[in-house]
Amino acid sequence: MVTVRIGVIGTGAIGTEHIRRVEQRLSGGKVVAVTDISLDAARRCINALQLDARLYDSEDDLLQDPSIDAVIIASSGPAHEGSVLKAIDAGKYVFVEKPLATTVNGCLRIVQAEERTGKRLIQVGFMRRYDPRYMALKSEIKSGRYGAPLIVRCVHRNAHVDERYTTEMAVLDTLIHEIDVIRWLIGDEYVSVQVLYPRGTRYAHARLQDPQIFNLVTQSGVVITAEVFVNCQYGYDIQCEVVCEDGVISITVPKLLDIFRTGFRAQPLMQDWKLRFAEAYDAELQDFIDHVGRGDEPAGPSSVDGYIATLVGEACVLAQVSGEWVTIPRPEEDLIVKDSLGYGRL
Amino acid sequence: MVTVRIGVIGTGAIGTEHIRRVEQRLSGGKVVAVTDISLDAARRCINALQLDARLYDSEDDLLQDPSIDAVIIASSGPAHEGSVLKAIDAGKYVFVEKPLATTVNGCLRIVQAEERTGKRLIQVGFMRRYDPRYMALKSEIKSGRYGAPLIVRCVHRNAHVDERYTTEMAVLDTLIHEIDVIRWLIGDEYVSVQVLYPRGTRYAHARLQDPQIFNLVTQSGVVITAEVFVNCQYGYDIQCEVVCEDGVISITVPKLLDIFRTGFRAQPLMQDWKLRFAEAYDAELQDFIDHVGRGDEPAGPSSVDGYIATLVGEACVLAQVSGEWVTIPRPEEDLIVKDSLGYGRL
Amino acid sequence: MVTVRIGVIGTGAIGTEHIRRVEQRLSGGKVVAVTDISLDAARRCINALQLDARLYDSEDDLLQDPSIDAVIIASSGPAHEGSVLKAIDAGKYVFVEKPLATTVNGCLRIVQAEERTGKRLIQVGFMRRYDPRYMALKSEIKSGRYGAPLIVRCVHRNAHVDERYTTEMAVLDTLIHEIDVIRWLIGDEYVSVQVLYPRGTRYAHARLQDPQIFNLVTQSGVVITAEVFVNCQYGYDIQCEVVCEDGVISITVPKLLDIFRTGFRAQPLMQDWKLRFAEAYDAELQDFIDHVGRGDEPAGPSSVDGYIATLVGEACVLAQVSGEWVTIPRPEEDLIVKDSLGYGRL
Amino acid sequence: MVTVRIGVIGTGAIGTEHIRRVEQRLSGGKVVAVTDISLDAARRCINALQLDARLYDSEDDLLQDPSIDAVIIASSGPAHEGSVLKAIDAGKYVFVEKPLATTVNGCLRIVQAEERTGKRLIQVGFMRRYDPRYMALKSEIKSGRYGAPLIVRCVHRNAHVDERYTTEMAVLDTLIHEIDVIRWLIGDEYVSVQVLYPRGTRYAHARLQDPQIFNLVTQSGVVITAEVFVNCQYGYDIQCEVVCEDGVISITVPKLLDIFRTGFRAQPLMQDWKLRFAEAYDAELQDFIDHVGRGDEPAGPSSVDGYIATLVGEACVLAQVSGEWVTIPRPEEDLIVKDSLGYGRL
Repeated sequence: MVTVRIGVIGTGAIGTEHIRRVEQRLSGGKVVAVTDISLDAARRCINALQLDARLYDSEDDLLQDPSIDAVIIASSGPAHEGSVLKAIDAGKYVFVEKPLATTVNGCLRIVQAEERTGKRLIQVGFMRRYDPRYMALKSEIKSGRYGAPLIVRCVHRNAHVDERYTTEMAVLDTLIHEIDVIRWLIGDEYVSVQVLYPRGTRYAHARLQDPQIFNLVTQSGVVITAEVFVNCQYGYDIQCEVVCEDGVISITVPKLLDIFRTGFRAQPLMQDWKLRFAEAYDAELQDFIDHVGRGDEPAGPSSVDGYIATLVGEACVLAQVSGEWVTIPRPEEDLIVKDSLGYGRL
Repeated sequence: MVTVRIGVIGTGAIGTEHIRRVEQRLSGGKVVAVTDISLDAARRCINALQLDARLYDSEDDLLQDPSIDAVIIASSGPAHEGSVLKAIDAGKYVFVEKPLATTVNGCLRIVQAEERTGKRLIQVGFMRRYDPRYMALKSEIKSGRYGAPLIVRCVHRNAHVDERYTTEMAVLDTLIHEIDVIRWLIGDEYVSVQVLYPRGTRYAHARLQDPQIFNLVTQSGVVITAEVFVNCQYGYDIQCEVVCEDGVISITVPKLLDIFRTGFRAQPLMQDWKLRFAEAYDAELQDFIDHVGRGDEPAGPSSVDGYIATLVGEACVLAQVSGEWVTIPRPEEDLIVKDSLGYGRL
Repeated sequence: MVTVRIGVIGTGAIGTEHIRRVEQRLSGGKVVAVTDISLDAARRCINALQLDARLYDSEDDLLQDPSIDAVIIASSGPAHEGSVLKAIDAGKYVFVEKPLATTVNGCLRIVQAEERTGKRLIQVGFMRRYDPRYMALKSEIKSGRYGAPLIVRCVHRNAHVDERYTTEMAVLDTLIHEIDVIRWLIGDEYVSVQVLYPRGTRYAHARLQDPQIFNLVTQSGVVITAEVFVNCQYGYDIQCEVVCEDGVISITVPKLLDIFRTGFRAQPLMQDWKLRFAEAYDAELQDFIDHVGRGDEPAGPSSVDGYIATLVGEACVLAQVSGEWVTIPRPEEDLIVKDSLGYGRL
Repeated sequence: MVTVRIGVIGTGAIGTEHIRRVEQRLSGGKVVAVTDISLDAARRCINALQLDARLYDSEDDLLQDPSIDAVIIASSGPAHEGSVLKAIDAGKYVFVEKPLATTVNGCLRIVQAEERTGKRLIQVGFMRRYDPRYMALKSEIKSGRYGAPLIVRCVHRNAHVDERYTTEMAVLDTLIHEIDVIRWLIGDEYVSVQVLYPRGTRYAHARLQDPQIFNLVTQSGVVITAEVFVNCQYGYDIQCEVVCEDGVISITVPKLLDIFRTGFRAQPLMQDWKLRFAEAYDAELQDFIDHVGRGDEPAGPSSVDGYIATLVGEACVLAQVSGEWVTIPRPEEDLIVKDSLGYGRL
């Protein structure tokens, strides 16, 4: 096992957090180069984390550095496509934050470019697949003990969002996680979606409809009901319940303590998604480093998974606007064949 | 407080259970007369419970008995309207099992007949309003501490149903309880409904689509998502969660024990709705008896509540058939004024 | 089934509550006479509850009333022995609040007097045996699925007590419930007891050591650890966990709601023992009335159970004083034979 | 931050697990040398984990290697003292598995040897201090919101042990974790201990009394009740509840899923202590590496903590034998001053 030398493109909050992970908590990787559209930001990151890493003026230069094995792309969403395509050209392994690209066509270009290399290079940062709760849930479903899934109920609640968060972002920033993780859980593809707007909370500003309910239907007829409520005030709360023919399985609310006090038994709730999925964030990146370090292809969420998430996300946005059921285009069959859902589909 | 002398019309399973309650568990009432379309059944009931009660050949005779203060109507649904109207004519107080009547017009006839007497005579058997969990939930909502309700999520699951249970009965026998209790909880009226059919369980027979999801919207925009799943295999499970602006409140799964055994912590679940709502069944009838015994009008679910439940139920059945959103007719304003939701509406 | 005509001796808080039960919630009984050492109190009770009952100047007169079938004795503890003995003499059925008598010899006198009548007349108010949680727990233990019980852990916490509550009352008023219910649960008799005094809460006054821990050992070697903490501030909390060879079973904390609010998931706790055991109080008295109404002997906690509770309680008080292990006298074998633990012991 | 070069003494199960951690999951450390009393075992470990590490014939040689910064000692308990003393002599930082040494005098020799170096070199493997649940519990206690701790209830249950596990090991291998973590939680020292032997499970062999209950008392009067039950059959179960003046705080049973199936709601329980404390094992070693890598002294459980655990453990073993209360010798005041309980005691 050799140390994986990593270049980081994008040293904002998430990029810095990934660097901290590689340098301070994970094994087998080393950040050897960084760049950012703000070189000042990149420099501050190097200093703050006392990195022994080169600062590159541009991602192009960084990607030409032959000593770099893999890149982490944590720039803004619209920049992903260009960076990923160049990284593929440069023959680097890529860990890219979601979304893979902001357009379906952009995603397809990436999938095809990767395909031409004859091997998997890309892992997309859908960290929930590495969360112990979701992994245990998938394991139960796959056991066959519960028969077929019929209904999936999801809740995605944040305590607060700021005024930059718009109605559309409920899909692209929030629901996108459910879109990926539910198809991974049940091994099925979406065919249609509808959006309901309940009475809005007084905490939402003018450009945000909050909460929203997404009803999705899959090829085999499973109905997914997903509530997105990003000003729920009380904390960060992720729920997922799968109703099957022979039982119902749901992930639990993480809680460390039971406190009996002043008339209540209470469990402190997590306030922060970073804390809720801390193990998953570590595990996804460790898994990427482990595979690359062994000379293997990444095994996490693939470029096809990233493509499908964007495809479904676009349909969800259409459904937000139209108020009607929207048909979700079927991903090309040969792409699904290569997916990484672990269900051994055709 | 005088003893309330009760005549019972209908001595099937539910009627017998109500008689048992009055005679063996509750205070202040006495069953003095019974009748049934099967006189044999009525006779068996008298013997089995060792009742000191007259057996009448017909409900007409029973209703003419001046020594009877109140009647419990527990015959089959289609028979309710006729019995209730005659009971009103005879000046008896009426406790009638749901539905008040099987048609909207039948319900309206009852509401108007009662109105002409100048007082409330009727209580409908929506027992959930007497369940400690639902009562506590309503109390929290009404406290104002949580702001406005935005979403209500309901689950109504039975372990099994037999082959007589059809798709339509998911509304009339099952969802009807949610229809009543949710409007009572949040003090709001429904305006539209949509039905989704998820992939069906292999346990459902040909005439039953199972599970079903009902999406209802209220005047103030609250979205109610109600799952009905009557072959869930594992037990009787009633859930209700109210998502408000400042918090989420849900009723708990009743459990008596925690058992640690063979790799699991487990809580035995109730299998039977009679057990789940045993306290509520007792409380609704005791409340009826208490009011009548004091010479007061009944204070439980009114004929208007029964009318609205049937009105909404009819729309839900239309939505089952059409697959589209169905508009729910607005109950006449002066009826709502007299409702018993406890929200002091106009 | 005839109506059981009941006389009540003692119309304080508990007596009044029992009268309310008989008159307003239960079936088959009627309070026809009352008395109290304060005739004013008895008169106020009659008026407040609008009873159709005679007021007697003395319990002797009341007990001579041939129209009375049964008496409820809810006077102060030291008065119980005299009342019970007279009631036995008068041939009345007796429901007596705990303790049966405040001394072991007093209890024995009652047991022997009852024995001379050739039938069971007495039921002692150990209501926990009628609590659904404890009943379910006993049912599991008796199932044999868990092997032998090895350890029982009990917690008995009250939010607050007033300054009349002393160290000794932790046994006689509080632990007494555990003493009875645990031997009923596991079908075993106590042989020794030790008391530990943890650091005391600042909320306890000078005459009260609070909390206390009682360690009891049974004939078969089961160790019971019982915490009594009567100023726990947060609510009324009764816990009971039975550690068996093949599993652990515990009763759950009753909760109606889950509330997600301001960083916590919380469940409101019951503050009041009357509420916690409301069903049990109703059930014990209904059971007594049902048996007497049918002409059967009472089947609830017997005079022997009351005797053993006082016997064990006395040893616990000795252990409070001595700080050492105290041997609990063995109840006479022929008494245990007649006990009502439901384990079919020799 | 430099890479910490680590030598490992003892490549059994725990040693190998620590090596795997350093090499595959943690950041900043590298295993550069190993030894074991069985050189074959050490060689197999090197091969299995594909370590780039020197194999030393003896710990003496390993400790003389100037390229080694720190050692992990994971040999058998009786070997610890010798290894730790030599490591101190060699000026290495030491991470030593519990116990620090098997005798109180052995521990004292280590404490004094370390003291002579003028700095902290040693961290003892009491990993629970790094468990998120225990950390959250300590944080609540220290907040002062709950007043003084009065009672601590601990449960330590294993599904099964093999026949090598004896009564005494219930203290030295099992309770030792509670001994350390409770004094760390509440910042208090033990003064006496008593052992109760409940009826034994039929699953225990002849040399093991199982379960056992330890009652410990601290200087401020806190009573700790600790159940050790190592054949509980159902899983690995660690509980800890702290009863304070103004509330009760307990750690929760970790659970990932809620499963509704065949009449039960169930949560799969962890079967394995390695899984239960996986995060804590990682965190304790990462913390050690971080401190050493920065040139700081280790901040985890100190040699004084290890000494006190052995001191208390010895008294517990005496109490197992005597059946009486045993006084726990008071650690010397100047040692406590240097402890690492985080309560800033004198």
